[in-house]
Amino acid sequence: MPPLDPPEPLTQTSPFPSDSVGLVAPQRMAFDIPLELEGGKRLDAYELVYETYGTLNADRSNAILVCHALSGDHHAAGYHRPEDRKPGWWDVCIGPGKPFDTRKFFVVSLNNLGGCKGSTGPTSTNPATGKAYGPDFPIMTVGDWVNSQRRLGERLGIRQWAAVAGGSLGGMQVMQWSIHHSECVRHALVIAATPKLSAQNIAFNEVARQAILSDPDFHDGRYDEYGVVPRRGLMLARMLGHITYLSEDAMRERFGRELREGRIQFGFDVEFQVESYLRYQGTSFVDRFDANTYLLMTKALDYFDPAQEFGGNLPQAFATSQSQFLVVSFTSDWRFSSARSREIVNALMEVRKPVCYADIRSTQGHDDFLMPNPHYLHVLQAYMQRVAVEIGA
Amino acid sequence: MPPLDPPEPLTQTSPFPSDSVGLVAPQRMAFDIPLELEGGKRLDAYELVYETYGTLNADRSNAILVCHALSGDHHAAGYHRPEDRKPGWWDVCIGPGKPFDTRKFFVVSLNNLGGCKGSTGPTSTNPATGKAYGPDFPIMTVGDWVNSQRRLGERLGIRQWAAVAGGSLGGMQVMQWSIHHSECVRHALVIAATPKLSAQNIAFNEVARQAILSDPDFHDGRYDEYGVVPRRGLMLARMLGHITYLSEDAMRERFGRELREGRIQFGFDVEFQVESYLRYQGTSFVDRFDANTYLLMTKALDYFDPAQEFGGNLPQAFATSQSQFLVVSFTSDWRFSSARSREIVNALMEVRKPVCYADIRSTQGHDDFLMPNPHYLHVLQAYMQRVAVEIGA
Repeated sequence: MPPLDPPEPLTQTSPFPSDSVGLVAPQRMAFDIPLELEGGKRLDAYELVYETYGTLNADRSNAILVCHALSGDHHAAGYHRPEDRKPGWWDVCIGPGKPFDTRKFFVVSLNNLGGCKGSTGPTSTNPATGKAYGPDFPIMTVGDWVNSQRRLGERLGIRQWAAVAGGSLGGMQVMQWSIHHSECVRHALVIAATPKLSAQNIAFNEVARQAILSDPDFHDGRYDEYGVVPRRGLMLARMLGHITYLSEDAMRERFGRELREGRIQFGFDVEFQVESYLRYQGTSFVDRFDANTYLLMTKALDYFDPAQEFGGNLPQAFATSQSQFLVVSFTSDWRFSSARSREIVNALMEVRKPVCYADIRSTQGHDDFLMPNPHYLHVLQAYMQRVAVEIGA
Repeated sequence: MPPLDPPEPLTQTSPFPSDSVGLVAPQRMAFDIPLELEGGKRLDAYELVYETYGTLNADRSNAILVCHALSGDHHAAGYHRPEDRKPGWWDVCIGPGKPFDTRKFFVVSLNNLGGCKGSTGPTSTNPATGKAYGPDFPIMTVGDWVNSQRRLGERLGIRQWAAVAGGSLGGMQVMQWSIHHSECVRHALVIAATPKLSAQNIAFNEVARQAILSDPDFHDGRYDEYGVVPRRGLMLARMLGHITYLSEDAMRERFGRELREGRIQFGFDVEFQVESYLRYQGTSFVDRFDANTYLLMTKALDYFDPAQEFGGNLPQAFATSQSQFLVVSFTSDWRFSSARSREIVNALMEVRKPVCYADIRSTQGHDDFLMPNPHYLHVLQAYMQRVAVEIGA
């Protein structure tokens, strides 16, 4: 007879690492004051889903706003269920003892408008029709997002963020904050970003969009009414995206020219490991993301160009900013290369704004901003340790 | 009354530039000795379409073989009709006074097997079924192509090529010639090539293939029987290809962030000029290229790895070569970067093979090998001027 299982311990221990924020639950906030959008349309009412980590202090001076990138959402840290194996997308940065130390800071992370993870977006019901918005959901800009984030901050009683932080498209939101609402942002953390997309960046977005738009299951964005999703198009868009998120070296190291079956098959099934990886990334994305949202997000990226209203002069755009800046780039990032971050740094220096800049030696590419790169985390930690948590400090 | 038009001249002048080979006509050669393919299949009979420029000399020592890249064909120089506005794809290099000087050399350019411009390929009739081969056309390798090119050379009475030359996938064919049949190749001109694709190169090919394979009009490659073509997939593949053919700088210079209508439209029609360019490139390609051929060509690229049968040792692969080498790369090429060409050069030097190498300062990217870059043309010209046209010279 086999030995009996040991008895369950009487006190349950946490299933999560000790530097994790642990179990978290999304919250929801409804807004009924119309939001005027840069594209000329208007959202009469909307909801934002968000999470918070840590505790807001008495004078509300310790809040950090986290802005997400193209396929991100509000779930930036911790776990939704005890059995979850993967934490939120920026868990390497948020938690007790981590750069955004939740013993000191109150971190707010939301799903942007137009998203598909709970905030009002194309999959939400359009009150005017009783059906999903689908393609009728207005195209959002980075400016629109920041305006909606300001309202969320106001409702949480936060008049000034200790820091606003984000990588990639998230970093663009940080720039927008620091240019147009810098009185609300003591520290702006602009990570793996660019002051505007290059023609090549737009070109990649355009191929991704065409993949979705030309999928026969797209139905002009009304696929929901047909009970289908444009799987093929969204899969291709994601596969393509992944190529730009990874450095060529990282791809070589991870996959090389390794063959899945050990030898060439002379067919069109998966042969090389990198094909297997891309197909997996593509197909799994389809189950958790909405095509109309993907289209919206790429447009917000393309449109972002804060210098434009200053005659194309980026230093001028930053001239009246009251924020302090940390700019971080990664040497292996070819999507938004270090040179693009240096454009931001140079513009800030030209108008004598306080800016720290770190170009992190890295291997993974654009995705490095999500990775536990020790130098990167150390830079963030050191910067955040000097952020005082009293307004005006 | 307006003056009369001047009278037509009695003798007609050429409508083409004086350094053009002028009007050319494709020729066709049939082969009925079976060709055993590396993938294990066999072509019992096939035809090759080719063009020639210049005159084969008495001892047949002045022939140059030109190998084409992914979407190339046999029409490398001159014009098919007097009204043609665009010459063959390598017209900058081939003609009287040009690097492949047709007053001195006899240039042969063919459409590779599996192509769609006249040589036997997926759109040809399969004698076994009486229908188009479609997806039943065997996947070709660079080695298969070189074997078919050898037969063409033999039938033309050319025992040794003065030079074999090609860019990109064409350069891979040159390498294959110089490794396995170097007694037939006095000079090997390897341009904008790589000894093997990187994981990132394969990844781009894989997204292009998935775009075609997942197009509902692809019908497992039998679209011909359905009276359709997988337009969307082939268009996406070509758009993506074009991003990798152009440098980021070239895209910035040509298109920047210029808006076609002068301002943002907040929609999914063409907004930026670069989108317009890509869509045009994509849609026009569909009318002149076959999807099954595109798939084949990308597989030949992925599979090419001449070092593999030498234990991954590239110098060893070149060790017994009797050819002399010119290797050319372009500083702005990010598809097959200069570093990849240097791998070839270093391998050749390691086994003490005669090699000239030029890294051409350029701006356009991978496509530079097709462009009238003066330095590039000068290097080719200087190299070819020293190529003697008697066997063994």
